[in-house]
Amino acid sequence: MAFDFDARLSAAAASKAARFSGYPPYHFVGGNIDEPTVPADALADAVGKVVREFGHDLAKYGMDSGPQGHLPLREFICDCLKRRTQIDITPDEVLLTSGSLQAIDLVNKLLLDKGDVVLLEAANYAGSLSRLDALGVEYQGIDLDQDGMCMEGLERALSALASSGRKPKYIYTIPTIQNPTGSVMPVERRREMLTLARAYDVPIFEDDCYADLVFSGERPPAIHALDEDRRVIYCGTFSKTIAPALRVGYLVAPWQVLSSVLPLKTDAGSGALEQLLLAEYLPDNFDDHVAQLLPMLNAKASALCDALDEHFGDCVAYDRPVGGIYLWVSLPENVDTDRLYQAALEQGVEINPGSQWTVDGAANRHRMRLCFGHPAIETIRDGIAKLADICFEEFGVPVRSGNVQRGRGQGSR
Amino acid sequence: MAFDFDARLSAAAASKAARFSGYPPYHFVGGNIDEPTVPADALADAVGKVVREFGHDLAKYGMDSGPQGHLPLREFICDCLKRRTQIDITPDEVLLTSGSLQAIDLVNKLLLDKGDVVLLEAANYAGSLSRLDALGVEYQGIDLDQDGMCMEGLERALSALASSGRKPKYIYTIPTIQNPTGSVMPVERRREMLTLARAYDVPIFEDDCYADLVFSGERPPAIHALDEDRRVIYCGTFSKTIAPALRVGYLVAPWQVLSSVLPLKTDAGSGALEQLLLAEYLPDNFDDHVAQLLPMLNAKASALCDALDEHFGDCVAYDRPVGGIYLWVSLPENVDTDRLYQAALEQGVEINPGSQWTVDGAANRHRMRLCFGHPAIETIRDGIAKLADICFEEFGVPVRSGNVQRGRGQGSR
Repeated sequence: MAFDFDARLSAAAASKAARFSGYPPYHFVGGNIDEPTVPADALADAVGKVVREFGHDLAKYGMDSGPQGHLPLREFICDCLKRRTQIDITPDEVLLTSGSLQAIDLVNKLLLDKGDVVLLEAANYAGSLSRLDALGVEYQGIDLDQDGMCMEGLERALSALASSGRKPKYIYTIPTIQNPTGSVMPVERRREMLTLARAYDVPIFEDDCYADLVFSGERPPAIHALDEDRRVIYCGTFSKTIAPALRVGYLVAPWQVLSSVLPLKTDAGSGALEQLLLAEYLPDNFDDHVAQLLPMLNAKASALCDALDEHFGDCVAYDRPVGGIYLWVSLPENVDTDRLYQAALEQGVEINPGSQWTVDGAANRHRMRLCFGHPAIETIRDGIAKLADICFEEFGVPVRSGNVQRGRGQGSR
Repeated sequence: MAFDFDARLSAAAASKAARFSGYPPYHFVGGNIDEPTVPADALADAVGKVVREFGHDLAKYGMDSGPQGHLPLREFICDCLKRRTQIDITPDEVLLTSGSLQAIDLVNKLLLDKGDVVLLEAANYAGSLSRLDALGVEYQGIDLDQDGMCMEGLERALSALASSGRKPKYIYTIPTIQNPTGSVMPVERRREMLTLARAYDVPIFEDDCYADLVFSGERPPAIHALDEDRRVIYCGTFSKTIAPALRVGYLVAPWQVLSSVLPLKTDAGSGALEQLLLAEYLPDNFDDHVAQLLPMLNAKASALCDALDEHFGDCVAYDRPVGGIYLWVSLPENVDTDRLYQAALEQGVEINPGSQWTVDGAANRHRMRLCFGHPAIETIRDGIAKLADICFEEFGVPVRSGNVQRGRGQGSR
């Protein structure tokens, strides 16, 4: 008889994965990106070149750069951040990570103990929320408007915590293309956040993972760039601009902080091949490549909004994306997106239910996140038509009467 | 004034890293391998080819294979394990990981809670011990002889725990080229371990990371291959045979177990480029490549033993390696290798002090681990001469009298 591992699992081993059976045909979830725009030939040339030249260095963990990661890539990141975000740092302040998820894990390991509290945007990246849950860390959601986290809400939460003798371990924010709402926080509000963080003596963890994807190509300076007292830890990634499967992200913090992070990065280094490749490819190509992505993503965003307007009409509300690869959609209160998720998945349409992307899941069960980076425009159109049919079957929404089978609203915001 | 992160660190953030300043000239630590033998040109050809062909798949986390990792590489691993270890599994039972370290982390996450106990070889991989320390897990060291973990000791420990109503969460073993002692457990003892594990109802975690490097090319079947009741979880790596900086390892377990592991692997996948590369390169090249490594490693092992004999004479005792890239050396009791480590490092010679590679560190302060995979043979010779000089200066060992400046022993086993 087979040994019963299930009877011996840790407290952390709480769930079971299903076998992978491929992606559904209409796949509106996850950080996957547009397949045709991955520059396969250029990446192939670059990686062939660097492996031929530096392949022998792969014999050493960390190659010649040590545990912070390949120095030429860290140098490029400094240059790139300076131009794009006004962050002004040296390679000493950059740690290459296995995706920005590892950067988040490391910041959490660095600062959080069970029972701690953090403040963050009330609608948020599910991966960040689930990590805090797993750590037994309390988080309080701060309301959002179309400019991102509201400073009145932040001040109220900071003040209430201070009154009860508590101090949040950090303020977690995705200020540039907030996930899932897509907002971009204006510079004035970034300064306000720093002022509040200083007044209440709290650090800020700025997650800028989608920040290269502002369609206009223009973005406010990073909060890190405005910070005068080195209270901001920052992370970014190349997953959304080059390719997610490469798993290359980075953490930016003063060396004094990184020196405490490095002993917590017990993986003997992140993958070197990706670091070599990016260090070769990016300096001559990153800006042009990103510039080419933006109109394509903008067109996909428009296709998604148009399809929602056509098929859901006045039943949906959303803010038209100014960047990124996702849209945050509100449906009528009677639509339960947990149920919609299940019903849609059975018919090959996958969505993110709002309950998973918010601190107050129950209050957001009529919302959903739709990712548009990966599916082609035709697939977006067909998938949303299908989703509307399923939503109608389940909830009678969008309302259909007589010959008018589908809504024809103007699209909300 | 800069924000004081040091005042806000978690309990886990206990130490600070020094800035990386390159490798010392005589670098006898770590799993680094021989630089000239990394097949840079062949890897460059292979990676260029697959990125050109499959580069667009990098747009998806997990490409087309999902969270267990690139299917063609899992298929190769099954084929390779069958031939080399007699393990007979399907790709369904393989999880690709970011180095075997992640495999170890995942098994620990899966099975261990604070206060649990595990049994393992009394001299052991420092990375495994430090992980258990960080988790607050108790571990008991089982004595080793030249055939690996002693079954009498294992039975005593299992019996004592059972008497006190405890059951170890697993038996961790490195049976094939044990780290650091280099022993290979004979097949009879592997069967005994399985019998004990069954009698005491305990799973086994078999770490086979160095197992491809048996100089003779012949090795006993894996414990996993002898297991009839699916109680063995197994891990391996390509770090020691292809290149450590690639960070590709794998975990082997029944799907029933892996389905509980997958939700704990929250990294959105391991690096795809390395997986693509290895799936392309290995099937036609792995056996030949490993066959070429073995005489080179054997020659390095001989050079190390010869240099120890020449410079330390009767003052050292060791078992001549039958495989792998490290040697476990005993010095006279008055030599404290923690102190030797410091003194040697200042002069450019790095060693692993025995205290870090044993459960009873205090009892093993006269031992050291010397890695010979990375340094060239000349470097090995010069480094050991230098180490003998430093050891003499610090401890008067090896004894030098009259014109005889260096020992001339036969080499002790």
